[in-house]
Amino acid sequence: MNNIKRRFRAPATQHRQEPILLQEQGSFAFGGSVIRRPDGQTVHVDHGYVQYQIPVDAKDHAIVMWHGWGQTGRTWETTPDGREGFQSIFVRHGFPVYIIDQPRRGRAGSSSVGVTLPGASDPDFFITDQFVFEAFRLGTWASDAAPKFASGVSFDRGEHTLNQYLRQVAMSTGPDLFDEEVKELFSGAVATLLDEIGPCVLLTHSTCGPFGWRVAMKSTSVKGVVGYETSPFAFPESDPPESVPFDIPELADWVAPDLRPDPLFDRLTKIPVQVVFGDNVDIHPEYRPYHARARQFIDVLRARGGDAELLELVEHGLRGNTHFPFSDLNNLEVADLLIRWLSAKGLDA
Amino acid sequence: MNNIKRRFRAPATQHRQEPILLQEQGSFAFGGSVIRRPDGQTVHVDHGYVQYQIPVDAKDHAIVMWHGWGQTGRTWETTPDGREGFQSIFVRHGFPVYIIDQPRRGRAGSSSVGVTLPGASDPDFFITDQFVFEAFRLGTWASDAAPKFASGVSFDRGEHTLNQYLRQVAMSTGPDLFDEEVKELFSGAVATLLDEIGPCVLLTHSTCGPFGWRVAMKSTSVKGVVGYETSPFAFPESDPPESVPFDIPELADWVAPDLRPDPLFDRLTKIPVQVVFGDNVDIHPEYRPYHARARQFIDVLRARGGDAELLELVEHGLRGNTHFPFSDLNNLEVADLLIRWLSAKGLDA
Repeated sequence: MNNIKRRFRAPATQHRQEPILLQEQGSFAFGGSVIRRPDGQTVHVDHGYVQYQIPVDAKDHAIVMWHGWGQTGRTWETTPDGREGFQSIFVRHGFPVYIIDQPRRGRAGSSSVGVTLPGASDPDFFITDQFVFEAFRLGTWASDAAPKFASGVSFDRGEHTLNQYLRQVAMSTGPDLFDEEVKELFSGAVATLLDEIGPCVLLTHSTCGPFGWRVAMKSTSVKGVVGYETSPFAFPESDPPESVPFDIPELADWVAPDLRPDPLFDRLTKIPVQVVFGDNVDIHPEYRPYHARARQFIDVLRARGGDAELLELVEHGLRGNTHFPFSDLNNLEVADLLIRWLSAKGLDA
Repeated sequence: MNNIKRRFRAPATQHRQEPILLQEQGSFAFGGSVIRRPDGQTVHVDHGYVQYQIPVDAKDHAIVMWHGWGQTGRTWETTPDGREGFQSIFVRHGFPVYIIDQPRRGRAGSSSVGVTLPGASDPDFFITDQFVFEAFRLGTWASDAAPKFASGVSFDRGEHTLNQYLRQVAMSTGPDLFDEEVKELFSGAVATLLDEIGPCVLLTHSTCGPFGWRVAMKSTSVKGVVGYETSPFAFPESDPPESVPFDIPELADWVAPDLRPDPLFDRLTKIPVQVVFGDNVDIHPEYRPYHARARQFIDVLRARGGDAELLELVEHGLRGNTHFPFSDLNNLEVADLLIRWLSAKGLDA
């Protein structure tokens, strides 16, 4: 076992884990289309990619994990500080686990629509280390200084950890934000996947919020959705939410409600829904409006008879969580809260 | 277990497999650099990404698998027709397995240098289905007709299989071919990884040929290299190979020898090396020159005292292999040949 670098192993304080027993594992492409060009040739594009692991004596419900903006399925694997992420945690708990790379991202990097990707030195390239560090609530990082972690943030301070975290970012090979075509393409592809998988709980993160809610409107395989700090949210066309204030003009698209026909929206009232937010949300100019929208979303679901809940991690004693609660230092406790919810909803089976 | 779509399961004729026992699994980034921009902000780029699985009672030697051009680590996972790929086959055999996405590809999609990716309808986009089908030796596919599989090709004829195969293609988010900077960047990153992993055997495919040979010159962790239909090949500066004829002008860069200083090249004579070619190579205008180069490469290694071998699958009774022998219908037999070679070289331990 000397061939695993020490720094990627579990901390010494963590006792050696039991082996993981897999009945089956693999990967495949889902959804997508075939473009026929003027020259008669064809190209397969806009599919997603999924990795799955089925443990021995697996539960009936699968957990499907969908990354956020600028990320890939890697989000759910090893944490930046080298501990097990939600993938291994939930396989150990007996769930079949499916990890997605959404269309045009990561191992699904084949797009019908072209794109120009700026180099890292180009001023148009804006996913800088400083941007990521502040936008994901690790702390503040002025470009002429060292990164300054927020007090009590649930993130390891080691240089190696931050290096790993900043290298999780991956560019899309095509358009990936909120126009109608993208929303339908991404949610349509994932709905196809879930129809194939069967009964499952969908975990979404950040930007895939609107895609995820649409998936739950499209596929009856979805038996529950848990959104980790997702945005934007879906709302019924007949009952749009009041506007929420925000200070950053660029946030407009991220705060805009995704209005859906009432009969579609109401499908979300037929399954349990949980939205999870971490710490320091209401003092952060980006998350304050997302959080306000989340409350409106939960309220409208409840008003229409839904089983919906806003889980504030701080109310459960979990402090210092960032925009990535599932890989923060306390991710085992975040996982416990999820398992408790799954159990309460009859989905932990 | 009813939540796995039937078509992704092992064929009915294949008896149910034993569980896979993993001591540990995860992923991390390796190599890469940090760009400091004129505005003082920084960006982490040009790293690779690796997934690892360590079985219970693992062997000392790890197997590291590196995909080829237009592909990702997905190359080594499930085969297009849904059977186990080299990842699971070699984990079952007791090896720690590491699967790479090279820098700027797949889950390592973060590049220092920008790039413009054409849409699929753009004439500049040339990785069409017809191109892939013919270039990877599945058969012929005229744009006004259905694909025509080569007689006896070791590839499942189902429509679903071809669909999966064509969706393995992924674009790079930055330059990825054969200039000196790319060769050094890719081989340097992977050498860093192997230094961390410890003793290993490196499997390369297709385009990562020159990168792979350079890795073996850089990292003493490499205890053997097996190249599946790789090109170009490395040669000693003092002894460049005779030119080989080729009919397709665009192949020039793919046939060009990668000349290395003799002391570096001679490091390849200190480890066992095997290059594997499949069927119909000498009648294919693209592979004929690669194959000729492979012979020259093996010859020069032997002349300088190396332990090098050109494995022709057809000489071992394996017919119909494509450019992807490790995922062809007979991939278990291809794996057996590898295990036999590892065993002969003392690396199956």
